[in-house]
Amino acid sequence: MSHRVSDEVVEWVTEEIRSGHSSRRHDRTIHKVGAPPKQNLLKEIKESVMETFFADKPLRHFKDQPASRKLVLGLQAVFPILEWGRGYNLSKFKGDLLAGLTIASLCIPQDIAYAKLANLKPQYGLYTSFVAPLVYAFMGSSRDIAIGPVAVVSLLLGTMLTDEISNYKSHDYLCLAFTATFFAGITQMALGVLRLGFLIDFLSHAAIVGFMAGAAITIALQQLKGLLGIQHFTTKTDIISVMRSVWTNVHHGWNWQTIVIGLALLAFLLATKYLAKKKKKLFWVSAFAPLVSVIISTLFVYITRADKKGVAIVTHIEKGVNPSSASEIFFSGKYLSSGIRIGLVAGLIALTEAVAIGRTFAAMKDYPLDGNKEMVAMGTMNVIGSLTSCYVATGSFSRSAVNYMAGCQTAVSNIIMSIVVLLTLVFLTPLFKYTPNAALASIIIAAVLGLIDIDAIVLLWKIDKFDFLACMGAFFGVIFKNVEIGLLIAVAISFAKILLQVTRPRTVVLGKLPGTKVYRNIFQYPNATQIPRMLIIRVDSAIYFSNSNYIKDRILRWLQDEDEHRKENSFPTIQYLIVEMSPVTDIDTSGIHAFEDLYKSLQKRGVQILLANPGPIVMEKLYASKLADIIGEDKIFLSVADAVASFGSKAEEV
Amino acid sequence: MSHRVSDEVVEWVTEEIRSGHSSRRHDRTIHKVGAPPKQNLLKEIKESVMETFFADKPLRHFKDQPASRKLVLGLQAVFPILEWGRGYNLSKFKGDLLAGLTIASLCIPQDIAYAKLANLKPQYGLYTSFVAPLVYAFMGSSRDIAIGPVAVVSLLLGTMLTDEISNYKSHDYLCLAFTATFFAGITQMALGVLRLGFLIDFLSHAAIVGFMAGAAITIALQQLKGLLGIQHFTTKTDIISVMRSVWTNVHHGWNWQTIVIGLALLAFLLATKYLAKKKKKLFWVSAFAPLVSVIISTLFVYITRADKKGVAIVTHIEKGVNPSSASEIFFSGKYLSSGIRIGLVAGLIALTEAVAIGRTFAAMKDYPLDGNKEMVAMGTMNVIGSLTSCYVATGSFSRSAVNYMAGCQTAVSNIIMSIVVLLTLVFLTPLFKYTPNAALASIIIAAVLGLIDIDAIVLLWKIDKFDFLACMGAFFGVIFKNVEIGLLIAVAISFAKILLQVTRPRTVVLGKLPGTKVYRNIFQYPNATQIPRMLIIRVDSAIYFSNSNYIKDRILRWLQDEDEHRKENSFPTIQYLIVEMSPVTDIDTSGIHAFEDLYKSLQKRGVQILLANPGPIVMEKLYASKLADIIGEDKIFLSVADAVASFGSKAEEV
Repeated sequence: MSHRVSDEVVEWVTEEIRSGHSSRRHDRTIHKVGAPPKQNLLKEIKESVMETFFADKPLRHFKDQPASRKLVLGLQAVFPILEWGRGYNLSKFKGDLLAGLTIASLCIPQDIAYAKLANLKPQYGLYTSFVAPLVYAFMGSSRDIAIGPVAVVSLLLGTMLTDEISNYKSHDYLCLAFTATFFAGITQMALGVLRLGFLIDFLSHAAIVGFMAGAAITIALQQLKGLLGIQHFTTKTDIISVMRSVWTNVHHGWNWQTIVIGLALLAFLLATKYLAKKKKKLFWVSAFAPLVSVIISTLFVYITRADKKGVAIVTHIEKGVNPSSASEIFFSGKYLSSGIRIGLVAGLIALTEAVAIGRTFAAMKDYPLDGNKEMVAMGTMNVIGSLTSCYVATGSFSRSAVNYMAGCQTAVSNIIMSIVVLLTLVFLTPLFKYTPNAALASIIIAAVLGLIDIDAIVLLWKIDKFDFLACMGAFFGVIFKNVEIGLLIAVAISFAKILLQVTRPRTVVLGKLPGTKVYRNIFQYPNATQIPRMLIIRVDSAIYFSNSNYIKDRILRWLQDEDEHRKENSFPTIQYLIVEMSPVTDIDTSGIHAFEDLYKSLQKRGVQILLANPGPIVMEKLYASKLADIIGEDKIFLSVADAVASFGSKAEEV
Repeated sequence: MSHRVSDEVVEWVTEEIRSGHSSRRHDRTIHKVGAPPKQNLLKEIKESVMETFFADKPLRHFKDQPASRKLVLGLQAVFPILEWGRGYNLSKFKGDLLAGLTIASLCIPQDIAYAKLANLKPQYGLYTSFVAPLVYAFMGSSRDIAIGPVAVVSLLLGTMLTDEISNYKSHDYLCLAFTATFFAGITQMALGVLRLGFLIDFLSHAAIVGFMAGAAITIALQQLKGLLGIQHFTTKTDIISVMRSVWTNVHHGWNWQTIVIGLALLAFLLATKYLAKKKKKLFWVSAFAPLVSVIISTLFVYITRADKKGVAIVTHIEKGVNPSSASEIFFSGKYLSSGIRIGLVAGLIALTEAVAIGRTFAAMKDYPLDGNKEMVAMGTMNVIGSLTSCYVATGSFSRSAVNYMAGCQTAVSNIIMSIVVLLTLVFLTPLFKYTPNAALASIIIAAVLGLIDIDAIVLLWKIDKFDFLACMGAFFGVIFKNVEIGLLIAVAISFAKILLQVTRPRTVVLGKLPGTKVYRNIFQYPNATQIPRMLIIRVDSAIYFSNSNYIKDRILRWLQDEDEHRKENSFPTIQYLIVEMSPVTDIDTSGIHAFEDLYKSLQKRGVQILLANPGPIVMEKLYASKLADIIGEDKIFLSVADAVASFGSKAEEV
């Protein structure tokens, strides 16, 4: 603890003389600690609300504008396409066209495959890739995100829906899927409109990394059904049930023709991925590989009629554009509440993914992205989607990356993709009849492996062990139980971290850096020296009810430890306790009471308390509570150096 | 926002010259920012766990002691009486005897009355005041607390038990009460043993003040039944139901004889309270008043036989010491889970009250109080209590205050009180037969009014409006709904405040105080001046996932606002952004990523980022993540003054 004092007694004395000098020299320029004029209550509340909900000042451009201009600005705020559309030109279109075609080729096989993850028929994946991107293109403000169904949300939806209605071929199951999609949209819109977007920040980056990796492995394991041609497969998603199911089927359940097709395609897809990783310019090889593998394997099955030898195929995809599903949403009845619950969870996860993608690309290209506006766009997209036979759509990591690399300029690439999907729905669905499920399985596996971000996990380990713990908690929760439990663990660990932060803030002992008037943590700066008869402690947090008692007790313990140590080394006892309050942004009534208690305890021990640099809010509350008078205004200083200068010499004299 | 820059251009230049000078003069003594040696993982985790759970270092005295001494110390730790008992003497006993007799006289009528609040027969109140204080005297470390049944916990228990079993005269009701008491004790012990005592700090002082005031009014309103002699009274506790019940009974339900007795006694009790408040020395008048009023009213009813005219009386109190209730606790069956739930809530509330009392008096007399040890003592006391026909006991605000004022020295005063209660149980219970319920009602009203701490509420309003809100939320929740809802509101508001704190930390713009090298918030110190071409921002919080994006966006918005403002006033544009990181105690991976994004955005804008005084943990993570290399080690400074000194002149030259 207090090993710092021991062998610097000589330096102390010189330091002491110096600070005595500086005290006198300093007197000319001593500044009073500023106590700001008392603000009135309404203004205070208004400012606090503004900073919480409107930190980005969304209406700043509206100020002092005529009504007509305000209308235009308002429309542009809701439909950003009206703003960027005016500067749209042919060269931008070229980029968007190329990117749109690329992501379309990638999304069509993925859509068909992901729909299966949600236990829905393949056309629903395509429906989702038609309507959702169109809506987003008009309302969204990210230029790089590629919208559509994604693996993790599909899996989450499939798991949660099957928990409610185990017969996923029933009409009720489909209706519940639309209901969940509708409420996912409502949730997203509500978060945006109520400006509660910051709530999704509570799912930490670390937790998302672990959750995604776990979900990827779970999804990949699920694909063993298609890849190995197993007919009777477990409906559970945890690794133990799946591996047991795979193992019990080994003798008569596996189909070797399927395995050959599946593994060949998987090898092909992974090879293209590897190539794209090595040579960034060849990203299009891996982007088109899924479509190519679908075409090749479909032709192969059609020619060899391998389906008659037990190779499972897609069989049928409904032709035509999205039918209306408005009448199929449960707005009452026993499934309403589960629809709301599933929608809430799926909507939040979808949003987390979309916002993470949006932020990443916005930072790379340095354009502003309004999180709350994005949420409204996502929400509207899913509400409209739920009425037109779509399920929950969001931004896809892999397709957004391809979109970016293919040179997309605006959300027009999403429109292009949407048109291609439309054409597919109208003309091409019969062509997928002989597509083997093994092809879809290998596409999913190749896609989700990209969600396992080993580098990020290593970085978590290096930077922050607690983050690593949250990541692993989410990861193991997902693979050993299910996605919901994984999510729950991730959120719980994230919250535990926040609680720890607010319950056990750091307090450090400061010393003076030789030759300066700077006071720093003596553990970080071993050459910092303490002042005789004084103990300087910095409190590194706002002082609230959740930590006020801890801070008080911790300060008293520092004092006791330090006093014992100084006694052992026969240094003079401590007479002044300086609390450096620069980092204390706020103090509440519990904090004030703790300081009163601290003051009383110190009085009993004959130690005087000095405060250094309390902030404006703290000063206001010190005065409002009369604590400033009790401690004495002459004991409140602008800086630690001032406090030492004023009392350091007195301390010496006593 | 940035109104500060405008009219200080002259001062700027002089400041600039000065800082240029100081730059050169300062170079000799520039200190490197300390990066502490990398700690190993285990040590890091161990330290973090120690600080969280063993912040008070409970085992410090055990270190380097022989085994026999460790045994003695261990016994003393569990039974503090072994420690303080050795120094016990006659003069201390005198104080304790007087205090014990005083609180006994106060507790006997209160016990009988409070048992009614919990819908239990009067003897259970007395049982509780016999066993619980005895156990506490051996295990507790507070010298001033008076143990026994208290009003708020009795009401809470009564409400929650009646919600489960509405027929409170049934044997099941009594068994559930013991079950809840047992699990309240287990909860308290668990919190203490697992060293989770800090969890009760999450119920903020403000919330407790509001909750207590609400509970007091609810309890007082309940007493209108006894005070007005109403026979058919609502079982609900909210103010609206109670007032309606009172009003509908006005014509034939009120009993004027009862009212006369009740109001007369209430007037007497309040008068003695007023007297005690005016003259502190006469506290004993109010301490003995309840007993006196019970004796007088009992005699009065006995002589006039007013009970035959409709004055409700106690009728019967079982004679004899506590019977065993071990066989009456539900350890299985349908009431087990509700027993656990009720016990958990009641145990926590009881603990909150006890710890608040313990801390108050410990601070007044400046002796150490180990919160976790107290919890173990309280828990043991309630577990033993539940086996011996007691219900939940805790420290009583009013009786502890009387105990303190009567000059108690140690927990022996609790033993004295316990013996008096024992004598009462064995010999005196028949004497209470004719005690009118109105007397008990007036005693309760007089007692609980002391729980309404108007001064504290006014102080909350003055110091912290958010605290006031939490207080009022709890208050209105209790009086308009019930104690449980009030508690829930209080906890919810407390948590909302914590979340707000970690989501929207403060960032401030710093300026230089004229004639110093000190940089302070320009809103608190209007004479602080900004440095041309530089913007200095202090972040006042650890940077975690919950706020990293906000902090990044907020810094960019400060930069934009300030840049616009300076452009308008044709000041040079900003080239350097200094982030003062002294208050940033920690940064996690999300925070690192946010800083990377910030760095990229600033690069695009041609602004360089400089860091001032990052702490040891932050430095470690900056290096672990390579962010220190990206930003450049030469851009990390010991202080803002150093950063300005190094780059201020360059900024000028460009």
